[in-house]
Amino acid sequence: MDHPARPADPPPYYDAHVFVCCNRREDGHPRGSCAAAGSEKLRDYMKLRAKQLGLKKIRINVAGCLDRCELGPCMVIYPEGVWYNVTSETDVNSILELHLRDGGRVAELMLANSCKTMVENT
Amino acid sequence: MDHPARPADPPPYYDAHVFVCCNRREDGHPRGSCAAAGSEKLRDYMKLRAKQLGLKKIRINVAGCLDRCELGPCMVIYPEGVWYNVTSETDVNSILELHLRDGGRVAELMLANSCKTMVENT
Repeated sequence: MDHPARPADPPPYYDAHVFVCCNRREDGHPRGSCAAAGSEKLRDYMKLRAKQLGLKKIRINVAGCLDRCELGPCMVIYPEGVWYNVTSETDVNSILELHLRDGGRVAELMLANSCKTMVENT
Repeated sequence: MDHPARPADPPPYYDAHVFVCCNRREDGHPRGSCAAAGSEKLRDYMKLRAKQLGLKKIRINVAGCLDRCELGPCMVIYPEGVWYNVTSETDVNSILELHLRDGGRVAELMLANSCKTMVENT
């Protein structure tokens, strides 16, 4: 096989890339969905507040289903791969200020890997 | 300020988390858009092929606008933060096999950070 040489990865294009799940399932779906739990408004608020705070090289992105629906509204921040459950503007502010601005973590909102979905990832 | 202690980050929930931009702008928009360039079909194909290849702990996600519209269809793979321009099923197969399965890079499809958008990220 023609296996190309592996080039060095470029430095991060964004220092932090936040993906907020905005997937919406039909009402009454047993897994629920992040949009049904209010994620779209929280994402819009987060984007606005990030700008107001002057955070640079950070993108607050919409994402489709991240497949942790039961734990939503949820988001993941890369490259560090930290997942959060976020239910209020106060939560969003904590993540913007403590994690994205100051480089810390908002421990009480973090999702452990042991937080399982009801349906195994397929 | 009540600054919480920083807990250790959990191990990756997904070994690779692929975000395929599926944003669609109106026809004729000067920046174009990834969906207009065919990203939605490529994402569906990638998800199917990843399953056929038996790749585990990898998620092929839909994303909203990644803000590199002129370079689309584009995708980013985290945690490594490698960006690709992908225009065909052949490209998708290369990324699935060489990057996601074998841990290499598909050098000829990678976006350098110096690949600029026409409009600065805001």
